[in-house]
Amino acid sequence: MSENVLAPDEMNLDAAAHAARLSDERPADVVELLNQHAPTFAAKVLEHFSPERAVDVLDQSGLDNAPEIIEALPRDRAVSLLTGMSGDRAADILRQLEKSKSTDLLAQFDAETRTTLQRLLAYPEGSAGSIMTTEFVSVPSTWTIAEVLHHIRMVERTRETVYSIYVLDPLKRTLLHAVPLRRLLSGDPHAKILSVAPARRRPITVAPLADRMDAARLISKYDLLAVPVVDGAGRVLGIVTVDDVIDAIVQESTEDVQKFGGVAALDEPYLRIGFLQMIQKRAGWLCVLFLSEMLTASAMQNFEAELQKAIVLTLFIPLIMSSGGNSGSQATSLLIRALALRELSLRDWWRVALREVPTGVALGAILGVIGIVRIAVWQSIGLYNYGQHWVLLAVTVAAALVGIVTFGSLAGSMLPFILQRLGFDPASASAPFVATLVDVTGLVIYFEVAALILTGTLL
Amino acid sequence: MSENVLAPDEMNLDAAAHAARLSDERPADVVELLNQHAPTFAAKVLEHFSPERAVDVLDQSGLDNAPEIIEALPRDRAVSLLTGMSGDRAADILRQLEKSKSTDLLAQFDAETRTTLQRLLAYPEGSAGSIMTTEFVSVPSTWTIAEVLHHIRMVERTRETVYSIYVLDPLKRTLLHAVPLRRLLSGDPHAKILSVAPARRRPITVAPLADRMDAARLISKYDLLAVPVVDGAGRVLGIVTVDDVIDAIVQESTEDVQKFGGVAALDEPYLRIGFLQMIQKRAGWLCVLFLSEMLTASAMQNFEAELQKAIVLTLFIPLIMSSGGNSGSQATSLLIRALALRELSLRDWWRVALREVPTGVALGAILGVIGIVRIAVWQSIGLYNYGQHWVLLAVTVAAALVGIVTFGSLAGSMLPFILQRLGFDPASASAPFVATLVDVTGLVIYFEVAALILTGTLL
Repeated sequence: MSENVLAPDEMNLDAAAHAARLSDERPADVVELLNQHAPTFAAKVLEHFSPERAVDVLDQSGLDNAPEIIEALPRDRAVSLLTGMSGDRAADILRQLEKSKSTDLLAQFDAETRTTLQRLLAYPEGSAGSIMTTEFVSVPSTWTIAEVLHHIRMVERTRETVYSIYVLDPLKRTLLHAVPLRRLLSGDPHAKILSVAPARRRPITVAPLADRMDAARLISKYDLLAVPVVDGAGRVLGIVTVDDVIDAIVQESTEDVQKFGGVAALDEPYLRIGFLQMIQKRAGWLCVLFLSEMLTASAMQNFEAELQKAIVLTLFIPLIMSSGGNSGSQATSLLIRALALRELSLRDWWRVALREVPTGVALGAILGVIGIVRIAVWQSIGLYNYGQHWVLLAVTVAAALVGIVTFGSLAGSMLPFILQRLGFDPASASAPFVATLVDVTGLVIYFEVAALILTGTLL
Repeated sequence: MSENVLAPDEMNLDAAAHAARLSDERPADVVELLNQHAPTFAAKVLEHFSPERAVDVLDQSGLDNAPEIIEALPRDRAVSLLTGMSGDRAADILRQLEKSKSTDLLAQFDAETRTTLQRLLAYPEGSAGSIMTTEFVSVPSTWTIAEVLHHIRMVERTRETVYSIYVLDPLKRTLLHAVPLRRLLSGDPHAKILSVAPARRRPITVAPLADRMDAARLISKYDLLAVPVVDGAGRVLGIVTVDDVIDAIVQESTEDVQKFGGVAALDEPYLRIGFLQMIQKRAGWLCVLFLSEMLTASAMQNFEAELQKAIVLTLFIPLIMSSGGNSGSQATSLLIRALALRELSLRDWWRVALREVPTGVALGAILGVIGIVRIAVWQSIGLYNYGQHWVLLAVTVAAALVGIVTFGSLAGSMLPFILQRLGFDPASASAPFVATLVDVTGLVIYFEVAALILTGTLL
């Protein structure tokens, strides 16, 4: 973000110069440039644009500081721009303002816009209703194709998309069909619109309170440009368009990766998050993991006698524990995506368990062989002396690896199922979470295996 | 996958029954059902469909076993269906067949289809060219709007989208403008197509060898329905449509999560991967990590004298090491996404470093305080006796935590930059990779801090 150390007059001149230079750019490119400036400066630039152009820029979902820019604008200007914007974007901005500010702005709107925005604001964040737009084309089923095309010509400028036309029951105003515009073009202009509607199929719809990712899945599965949001009575409340869905998919993927890394999802780009907020987003999980990991200290206290007798056992603790965590986070990452993409459902847990156990045994055995080779080589070329019972020690390490990697794979693959079963997002099963879970058990497995194999010799 | 233990005749009857039952379903729903059956059975069902319907089904990107289904069909049928399919899908299927099979099939096509497919097959996987379709609408700039609309009516059925019209130079056939269909509707039919083209702006295009995610970014940024793929001379080779891009984004996100979990990206759903293939995808990274983690054993061998003197130090090894790994994987997950979304570029590395060091110190200090409290409480209520120097031990643990969490945050945040700088995908910086990197250094930090604070007392 560039510093603006200009006096107000200079800033105004500078903003006018910027606005002039940006006059031919596409809205998305203007946004890219405005994102590099403070919101107050961006607001000044917008004031130098025509209202239509300012609305086009504010309508871009890529604009980072839209709420701050709206706040920095004179109230009248802010209200007229928000009125011109698409409903979903305007509601999104109002949602991010302080309650008192958004209430104050809402009071200034004309009655129709206010009602629309309040209805959109009522839908919870992340719902299909919260990302829908109310600017769509709907026509009664009694119209002819020519009438529909004429209507589209009239309203085209104010609609987010005209490529899907929603055909309603003329009396009940419920949704009968969704007709793609391309079908209209090749139809007979004097025929009724229903003549080009798909025969017996009911249109694909989504409920307003459904998760926005459900809307995304429908659009992706059926290759749609928009999906209508329909209430219980079958009336169209709005539509979710494909570009909203792309934004939602990208945002969810980001959250998934961040959660998997053990961070609470950030709402803003990395460099824009304040220092304290960053600490807050990370300290929570880090402390929970730290407190759980303290169980490893307790576990080791229990095995102190063994440690005293065979200090050589401690050398392999980090190696063995990390292998369990690594195999666990592999399994978790596979299962999180398989569940997110609906390749698997809850009731498939046992198939997964039946796959992960042999997989874990095989992977553990591979690592076990490497471990044995390493100890044997170090011992025989004299790099380190593991003592007279080095063969038994190597067997202990290998056996523990098989047990721990198997446990890691199983625990890592079951955790997302357990979280989903408990009503949490399976993506909350972060790599550090799995590693911590496996670490404590891993230590216990290691010492139990050691006791079994080494009692009478080293222990 | 359901077993098909039916005799050939029964299977045929069963397939006919399935085909009849599916006659009214949408192609995407047919695909969902076919995915639950063996490819041989799915091929039988397709043979009972009309050619148009079979093509619609094969055109769905959700169909899991399309290459196997094509192989199971009689060759004539396979060739005619592939010819009817959209170019990008047909090429995608041929790409997945064995070389000999695809060459054999290619020889059967008519010359035009063969040339198109061969051209598509020549683009490397993951490129914009490999996911483009050649079925788009292009018109010379000399045409009127009425002529263009008439043309669209003629070709509508065979074009993947008609909502973007590509206006070409009539002589050089280079791309002049991309005009959205909606603009045509409201224009004067007798005016030239160029009258509704955006004035001075050059169209957004992508090169055939660009990454498919570059096409995705353009479509998402400019809210397009398709982006034209243009060669060096400015001629349109094909278009990448928004539904191809959604598939690409979802697939890349899956690969990112899997890579972050330390697995080589799977090409198929979890339950479809064979056992050996699964081992192969996971064993590689697991072995590399295991070999690197062996350095922890070497590090501990170096500190064996200290361990002998103060066995109590070992109790905190897993706790301290895991905290470093956890803070590292947090930082990595944040940076991977910030780089993938282009919020940051390579030259921002020092800003990130300047943020991560104080963040790491603060997070380490928080954990350090918890560590001190834990040791003090256990000591004072008699849960465990850490010896007479327990205060110094607590200070050692806290100081080591500050050092290790700081190092973890810094290493975890720099690793994606380093990988990108070296030409690798920053998403290859998996959580286990970071944890392993931090583990070895963490051990050294811990023992160095211990030597500094405890020499003369415990050591």
